[in-house]
Amino acid sequence: MENVSTLQSLIAGHWLGTDAHTPLHSALNNKLIYHTHAEKIDFGEAVTYARKTGVKELMKLDFQKRAQCLKALAFYLMERKEELYEISHLTGATRPDSWIDVEGGIGTLFAYASMGSRELPSSNVLHEGPAMALGKRGGFAGTHILVPRGGLAVHINAFNFPIWGLLEKFAPSFLAAMPCIAKPATATSYLAQAVVKMMMESGLLPEGSLQLVIGATYDLLDRLTGFDAVTFTGSADTAAKLRANPNLIKNSVPFTAEADSLNCAVLAPDVTPDDPEFDLFVKEVAREMTAKAGQKCTAIRRVIVPEQHAQAVGERLRARLAKVVVGNPKMEGVRMGALASMDQYRDVSERVELLASGNEVLFSARDGFSPVGEDAASGAFFSPTLLLCRNAMTNDAVHDIEAFGPVSTLMTYRDIDEALELAARGKGSLVTTLATKDPSIAAHAVPMMAASHGRVLILDREASVDSTGHGSPLPQLKHGGPGRAGGGEELGGIRAVKHFLQRAAVQGSPTMLSSVTGEYVRGGAVKESEVHPFRRYFEDLEIGHSLLTHRRTVSEADIVNFGGISGDFFYMHFDEIAAKDSQFGKRIAHGYFVLSAAAGLFVSPAPGPVLANYGLDNLRFVAPVAIGDTIRARLTCKRKVDRNRTDERGIGQGVVAWDVQVTNQNDELVASYDILTLVQKRG
Amino acid sequence: MENVSTLQSLIAGHWLGTDAHTPLHSALNNKLIYHTHAEKIDFGEAVTYARKTGVKELMKLDFQKRAQCLKALAFYLMERKEELYEISHLTGATRPDSWIDVEGGIGTLFAYASMGSRELPSSNVLHEGPAMALGKRGGFAGTHILVPRGGLAVHINAFNFPIWGLLEKFAPSFLAAMPCIAKPATATSYLAQAVVKMMMESGLLPEGSLQLVIGATYDLLDRLTGFDAVTFTGSADTAAKLRANPNLIKNSVPFTAEADSLNCAVLAPDVTPDDPEFDLFVKEVAREMTAKAGQKCTAIRRVIVPEQHAQAVGERLRARLAKVVVGNPKMEGVRMGALASMDQYRDVSERVELLASGNEVLFSARDGFSPVGEDAASGAFFSPTLLLCRNAMTNDAVHDIEAFGPVSTLMTYRDIDEALELAARGKGSLVTTLATKDPSIAAHAVPMMAASHGRVLILDREASVDSTGHGSPLPQLKHGGPGRAGGGEELGGIRAVKHFLQRAAVQGSPTMLSSVTGEYVRGGAVKESEVHPFRRYFEDLEIGHSLLTHRRTVSEADIVNFGGISGDFFYMHFDEIAAKDSQFGKRIAHGYFVLSAAAGLFVSPAPGPVLANYGLDNLRFVAPVAIGDTIRARLTCKRKVDRNRTDERGIGQGVVAWDVQVTNQNDELVASYDILTLVQKRG
Repeated sequence: MENVSTLQSLIAGHWLGTDAHTPLHSALNNKLIYHTHAEKIDFGEAVTYARKTGVKELMKLDFQKRAQCLKALAFYLMERKEELYEISHLTGATRPDSWIDVEGGIGTLFAYASMGSRELPSSNVLHEGPAMALGKRGGFAGTHILVPRGGLAVHINAFNFPIWGLLEKFAPSFLAAMPCIAKPATATSYLAQAVVKMMMESGLLPEGSLQLVIGATYDLLDRLTGFDAVTFTGSADTAAKLRANPNLIKNSVPFTAEADSLNCAVLAPDVTPDDPEFDLFVKEVAREMTAKAGQKCTAIRRVIVPEQHAQAVGERLRARLAKVVVGNPKMEGVRMGALASMDQYRDVSERVELLASGNEVLFSARDGFSPVGEDAASGAFFSPTLLLCRNAMTNDAVHDIEAFGPVSTLMTYRDIDEALELAARGKGSLVTTLATKDPSIAAHAVPMMAASHGRVLILDREASVDSTGHGSPLPQLKHGGPGRAGGGEELGGIRAVKHFLQRAAVQGSPTMLSSVTGEYVRGGAVKESEVHPFRRYFEDLEIGHSLLTHRRTVSEADIVNFGGISGDFFYMHFDEIAAKDSQFGKRIAHGYFVLSAAAGLFVSPAPGPVLANYGLDNLRFVAPVAIGDTIRARLTCKRKVDRNRTDERGIGQGVVAWDVQVTNQNDELVASYDILTLVQKRG
Repeated sequence: MENVSTLQSLIAGHWLGTDAHTPLHSALNNKLIYHTHAEKIDFGEAVTYARKTGVKELMKLDFQKRAQCLKALAFYLMERKEELYEISHLTGATRPDSWIDVEGGIGTLFAYASMGSRELPSSNVLHEGPAMALGKRGGFAGTHILVPRGGLAVHINAFNFPIWGLLEKFAPSFLAAMPCIAKPATATSYLAQAVVKMMMESGLLPEGSLQLVIGATYDLLDRLTGFDAVTFTGSADTAAKLRANPNLIKNSVPFTAEADSLNCAVLAPDVTPDDPEFDLFVKEVAREMTAKAGQKCTAIRRVIVPEQHAQAVGERLRARLAKVVVGNPKMEGVRMGALASMDQYRDVSERVELLASGNEVLFSARDGFSPVGEDAASGAFFSPTLLLCRNAMTNDAVHDIEAFGPVSTLMTYRDIDEALELAARGKGSLVTTLATKDPSIAAHAVPMMAASHGRVLILDREASVDSTGHGSPLPQLKHGGPGRAGGGEELGGIRAVKHFLQRAAVQGSPTMLSSVTGEYVRGGAVKESEVHPFRRYFEDLEIGHSLLTHRRTVSEADIVNFGGISGDFFYMHFDEIAAKDSQFGKRIAHGYFVLSAAAGLFVSPAPGPVLANYGLDNLRFVAPVAIGDTIRARLTCKRKVDRNRTDERGIGQGVVAWDVQVTNQNDELVASYDILTLVQKRG
């Protein structure tokens, strides 16, 4: 970079900042590349703008439309990813490091777009049912809904993944209709600024849904209420400081922390040096030590191996580390880049010194370290460093001191229970890996490791072909661990969206609950449809549109014929003698016959708007149907989701779930289920 | 009570305390009834005992067995409930007030026993699936498990419901295998002590699973780690104080608060004084003002009504309140008892004075208040008090000051949006009631109220026949609200148990995930069964036992016959012309035929251990089956739950879920589902 520009905050729809304040340097050569801005931010304005404009504009959309918006945004960013890679290089990252940040971040947008579209309604009320009866007379029921909180989210991020960190927090809160104020770590805030500029240029985001703070947050947290939320990724110390903010405490402001922790990897006692799992383990450790120069909150800090294999693990690790070329990632062959800044370099050096005291150094800068690239000597390059601790059960430091760089400590155990105890000595970590080939060891160890780790990766030869690795949080899986790791939960599929919504129990008559949840609740008023509900287009269908079918008497001939066609001659249907001794005391009709006959009762045979019945949920055979019983079905429109989709023929369609109740001549429920259909749109 | 006894703490399995410390007085006449004990508690011992003995003994059981234990305990307490009613009387409670505490508390045990048995596994690993593929080659998948945390729960309770408060927190944490240290509010700790003594006498609880602290907690919270948990019910101020505990913050100790809040009830604009909803509303408010003398964290403090109906509501409320006889609940006709103590009396008096300033007093002690009963003048009896605020939009005090007694403020609004704004002015409450007869008003208002209230009750004539009322948290429904209400979640069914467990993502090969979760994950190794899996008894079945059936070619005759039997002549199956234009381009077999034919392929006709197929879940018709296609099914034992049950004939049985995959001649999946069966035990 020739000219040093001033970074800008995005506050209340305006980019702010021209005067230089704090200098930021390239990780590669410590040259000055940017300044933060000196202008003070009016956080009152920022918060008001989010609450008024941001919430209002986000609430004009629904869950489905916000998911579509995320998808469009992801495509927009993906087309421009090379610009981001270019800037990411300044942070010291290699191309694979930047891939995690850039494409991992954009991939998270895609993932939330897709999960949102699959799992969320086309409204702003998420029904978390099923509704349950709360009385004997059917007039009162209860259920849960999740709704947007009406507040804003402050997302405070770490320096290591400025793009991924911003997007993985933004995506679920955006789906939840929460405007976001993103506060990246200052050291690499230029990369966060770049992606936010791109997001704004896309023109895809509702007004007020995103703001960016370069520099300190001053009184921002003091302005939040219980309807807002704060998420934090960074050190355990900073997490504790923020959590103690008097305003957050007074107003019960939800606070989620993701703190870096002393993650470990355990080589199980069943794995020998000849097993593929042994090398998979070594490879995973080496990769986690060097990826992003070890600056990942999920990196493996503690390598826990059986006493008898410590030497073999150490040797193979040394051999791998020796081959890692460190330097400017633009140079040919470079496998590991720099720490993010010289501040980080000093911090990691100090901690390595503390860790090395009393422990052996198996690999370090002494093993021929010389980073490649122009001015690399001025850059924040740090040698991979491997220590060996032989007294891990009595050494507190190795379970407590984290050097946030390419640094790990090998430690030995005698039996699996000691290994598990060592793992738990991290006092709560984000992730752990167990390498084993024995499912029974996994069954014993993993639930115990799960109590102190947010994620557990089981590594074996079967998994290795597809494994995404120890260090990679995935959008579908929970990220976050207990205790030292901050006690938070991020990602994990739609769970993350729910964390930004407010859950409320709702009680009332089934009619009222149907109206509030947008989902038919049994016992609620139905709308007897003049038109067969299967003949209504998606737009014309209303929740509660219902059909009570004609009746059908079930005969012995039905059972006989159904057995002949299905091939199901189960004694309950065909063996008079055994059926007498069974719980029902007599022959009964096949459950699947009841299901099929019900379809025969409510099907509308000619082509119509119902395009397909693609599934069925929650089928319960509530009572037997005997010979001579007369059944009928009630079919009621239960739930509609407009995913704004068309099929391959260009026909617009929506998802409609139908409540089906099959009853007998005494109006007793005999079978109960939901059927899932695709229904064509009118226009 | 003639002799004043000293209350005892239960620490590390021993009752502790003989020397008197703080005096406790009867609410009815201020007579001295108990002392707390003077002996100091060794909280180090208490915590160690819970962690070592408590966790170990609880983990010897599984979820199902702990649920059984809760059920037995509930029966034990229910038989002895009159002893508890007798002591509860001293707190100033009427019989209906005590019913909430005593039978509400025991009912919560029953409810958790039942939900635990229905929804939790017979192991200590709760699988929160489904597992999902994380790669293209099928070797790697991910899912979530919830496991016991290995720590203890400190449950800190309020004075108003000493039994319910203790049991509603104890039940879910017990199911989660967390030993509990219960700390009741000192004022009514004699009632908590009574129920804990009873629980211990039952001999039903595993050693170390319950301890009781009478008096202050001193350094208890400073001894907790991130694997423990703290729950609190009480004032917002105390919640904030506890939440700021440096040790809780440093170690990310999960902290849940349930704070009393300015709950409101809203009379919707559609309801006129002639509607039944009008009187239902008035009755609900009067009941909530007087039940437990208004000392409920869910009580209605703000009564929000249309301007034009304020007078009518005020008059009808006054009339109801005038009929409430206050006094010693043992006296004939008494409908409202005393506040819990003279301290409370003074506190409520002060706050009423603050609230009354600038507002009209519609009903108070001036309206002929004279509590009945011997020495009632010395008791903590307080008159129902109703205020009227005509400027609620500009009056902060009425939305902020809570008089924790039989005190409410009537306030007026002009339109529904103003009403909703007033409701939200409580800054987060536990519960609100909306009285309306119009489902569209409910659909508009409830999601907005849900953002600031933990529970929303919709009151109409349909609901009133069964309504459990505004003030009653139910075990099935979430209790807890955002902001001022503390931001916590309690109860809400199995959610509450999950709050005390640790969730972890688990990644690995399907074989490993099957072993860890105890639930077959597709793609994992199966055990081809020599015996048909339907012929194995429950004990002999293993997860992964599997049958690949013979094949069946689907013919046009099958479709024709199936149509004839089911009556389902949908064009996709029967109309060559229309089917050509459909998405599949040709006639296909009925989905229900595929389902029925699959059953025919894997059924084992003779009587055997499979007693019933009672349901089916997650059926998806993945691909069409055309004429000439050849299908087969794979049936795999997916999940076993031993609920330790026998049927009415005394036959032991367990629940077994089976994974079914129906494939075609190209090994493509055409249908996918789980079937649910009851399987007999060997012995």
